[in-house]
Amino acid sequence: MKTTGNLLYAQSGGPTAVINSSVLGALETAKQYPEIKHVYAAYHGVEGIIDETIFNLGTEDKQETSKLLKTPGAALGSCRYKLQSKSDLAKVLAVFQKYDIRYFLYNGGNDSMDTCSKLATYFAQVNYDCKVIGVPKTIDNDLVATDHCPGFASAARFISTMLAEVTYDAQSYTSEQIIVFEIMGRNAGWLAASASLARLTGYGPDFIYLPEVTFDLDKFISDIQALRSKKKLLVIAVAESLRLKDGRFVTDLVGQSTSDVFGHQQMGGAGQVLASILKERLQTKVRAIEFSLLQRAASHLASEVDTYEAYQVAAYAVKQAVKGVSGKMVTILRAAASHKLSQDFGQQLDEGVKEKLSQAAQAYKSSYGLVDLAKVANQEKLVPRAWINEAGNDVTTEFVNYCLPLVSNLLDFDMQATLKVADNGLPNFSDLKRTLVSL
Amino acid sequence: MKTTGNLLYAQSGGPTAVINSSVLGALETAKQYPEIKHVYAAYHGVEGIIDETIFNLGTEDKQETSKLLKTPGAALGSCRYKLQSKSDLAKVLAVFQKYDIRYFLYNGGNDSMDTCSKLATYFAQVNYDCKVIGVPKTIDNDLVATDHCPGFASAARFISTMLAEVTYDAQSYTSEQIIVFEIMGRNAGWLAASASLARLTGYGPDFIYLPEVTFDLDKFISDIQALRSKKKLLVIAVAESLRLKDGRFVTDLVGQSTSDVFGHQQMGGAGQVLASILKERLQTKVRAIEFSLLQRAASHLASEVDTYEAYQVAAYAVKQAVKGVSGKMVTILRAAASHKLSQDFGQQLDEGVKEKLSQAAQAYKSSYGLVDLAKVANQEKLVPRAWINEAGNDVTTEFVNYCLPLVSNLLDFDMQATLKVADNGLPNFSDLKRTLVSL
Repeated sequence: MKTTGNLLYAQSGGPTAVINSSVLGALETAKQYPEIKHVYAAYHGVEGIIDETIFNLGTEDKQETSKLLKTPGAALGSCRYKLQSKSDLAKVLAVFQKYDIRYFLYNGGNDSMDTCSKLATYFAQVNYDCKVIGVPKTIDNDLVATDHCPGFASAARFISTMLAEVTYDAQSYTSEQIIVFEIMGRNAGWLAASASLARLTGYGPDFIYLPEVTFDLDKFISDIQALRSKKKLLVIAVAESLRLKDGRFVTDLVGQSTSDVFGHQQMGGAGQVLASILKERLQTKVRAIEFSLLQRAASHLASEVDTYEAYQVAAYAVKQAVKGVSGKMVTILRAAASHKLSQDFGQQLDEGVKEKLSQAAQAYKSSYGLVDLAKVANQEKLVPRAWINEAGNDVTTEFVNYCLPLVSNLLDFDMQATLKVADNGLPNFSDLKRTLVSL
Repeated sequence: MKTTGNLLYAQSGGPTAVINSSVLGALETAKQYPEIKHVYAAYHGVEGIIDETIFNLGTEDKQETSKLLKTPGAALGSCRYKLQSKSDLAKVLAVFQKYDIRYFLYNGGNDSMDTCSKLATYFAQVNYDCKVIGVPKTIDNDLVATDHCPGFASAARFISTMLAEVTYDAQSYTSEQIIVFEIMGRNAGWLAASASLARLTGYGPDFIYLPEVTFDLDKFISDIQALRSKKKLLVIAVAESLRLKDGRFVTDLVGQSTSDVFGHQQMGGAGQVLASILKERLQTKVRAIEFSLLQRAASHLASEVDTYEAYQVAAYAVKQAVKGVSGKMVTILRAAASHKLSQDFGQQLDEGVKEKLSQAAQAYKSSYGLVDLAKVANQEKLVPRAWINEAGNDVTTEFVNYCLPLVSNLLDFDMQATLKVADNGLPNFSDLKRTLVSL
């Protein structure tokens, strides 16, 4: 017998440019199943469950909800709350019973999958029938068991596009310059690695430093010093979270400079600290550019593949939940055929390599699968060492091969019509009414 | 008798997202006139003239040059060289005579118009027949005698779009936060003012501080303090060049903090300095975001009106030069009818006001005119005080009324086809062969 009741959807953790595409995927799919009476949303994730701020997604205007495809940030509100205590779990159960929640979809990263996992286990223990499914989402791309995570590709597209545009701009002059781009990523360097895609335009970074490799300041300076005689403009991509051999972060180098010019710990991240050190050591013009929140909020540049897959992972979650699946997270599987280029072409992307990479990107296909929540919760997937060059200052073409299809345009993208900006040239965000559920 | 010979085009000063659209406008128009034998470009502005790095634009692939519409940065190379000495002028004349340059188009801002003006005067003095026309370009929008400058609107579109997207993202959480956006603009606050357009999306800044108004730190803090009790997320836009009553820049406040935490003069601009002060005084989470070079390089988000007008100002320059005009800069004139909304709606942009503004934007029309170079050279147009509110912490709707049409989409934009990104989702920049002219 099929489970009948209401579906509750909630968002958690850092937003992405396509996070709300998953909301639409869940909503439109859930409406197709008679087993699901209402589609509810908790405002601000688990916090909204606990304080019963629950609204009815099903009563939202279709015109407004379709804009979710191009609305960044958590349209349902997000939280960083981690379910800990037994009383928290009991409170969630009481709310679920009150609102007859029989399907629960939680959209988030490693922490959120932990919440999901705890709830699924608890509901089983207390014999409460509720299908719990995790919907993956993180720009960091660090969830295990999935080929990649919704949100990552759009951030990668923003990073590589803007890095290429700024590099083209900066080579307008004849004077020497170094630009250090600081890119998000706590322990995993997927986003910093995506800077390499800019090479497809002919204007990419010279070096890329990932947190997967211990950062060596002297080697960093000698890498750059060695290239200075050959190029006037040097472009460096660094992850925000580079760590030194002794375990400290690069930002801890503040105050360590020979001239002791760095006085303030809170000002500036890794990019700014490294730029200041380079400026002092090499006596040249150095500029630090931090992509900051822009890289996760730029829905105007969202990848079409990413927007589509973000929609589909949530749609798949609904379908599986209705089939009776629980305690799983949806994964994205890459069709083997789409991963054609296994050889490494080295750092130089000549025209032939670019052409082959673009062909491989067009052959990209994906499908969806499931993994136990317990296997995903609190785990982190790092960039494989084999995808980082030996010197530890760049990625290999294998990474480009992996990443490029994800930022690509879809040939027949049926969501295209809804993706238009307004006639006034500005974004057209979804504004949900958020009609609270009253019982 | 018409002047017959070659046309030389060059770029100078800071690039814009649509700077190369003007190159295409000049090239395609010049080819229509038999009086113009060849279309040459000097590589890196006046520097390329003086060292004779001159290439033939006319031999470039049409497919490559059409990409100029979506290529940021100076495709012909830029410079910051200011013509000073008599020997410089004589050298330019010698090169012009050698290459039979009879038409000279210089694309730039106030400084470049000074170069243009000096050359026009000098050529007249020495009786060398060469038509000199200035083609306007600056993201700062500070050239006098023109309604606005090509390049400004695209930067304004990037700033307002990204400010809206980040604001939407930041309101995902329930916690308190202040975000300070630092926006370019040396003495003129046009770009910082453009942050106001984000209000059309419903997610705009709470305060905007322009360099046209003396910056008062105490008032700034009390402005923000007053709003904190009402809103959890506060968004502030500041120009990079805010000045204090005593003439110092806001960045000079570094080292003045009571806890003396600011040790390093070179780290951080106005946004970061103000964020640090707010963090310390208000004891809350404050984040500084600097748009840096992104705001002028983001050709992926270039305004259609801007791309079109950048093309047309150069096309008009060619037409006027062939007619015998010299010593002038091209100006953009706004059709009176398109400037319908003269009343001020105040800071609140409710739905009715948004609707009226959008209608006015669609009625926008422009034409082109001429102004003496001498009247433009080294002058600066600031944001009128009447377009800034009395408290000096915002712009009026009159400014939005002026700016909004410039970022809008064109209903029938015949350049649309060429504006597509590549199928791989990344930009498709123009790569000129730069075949040097050999004589």
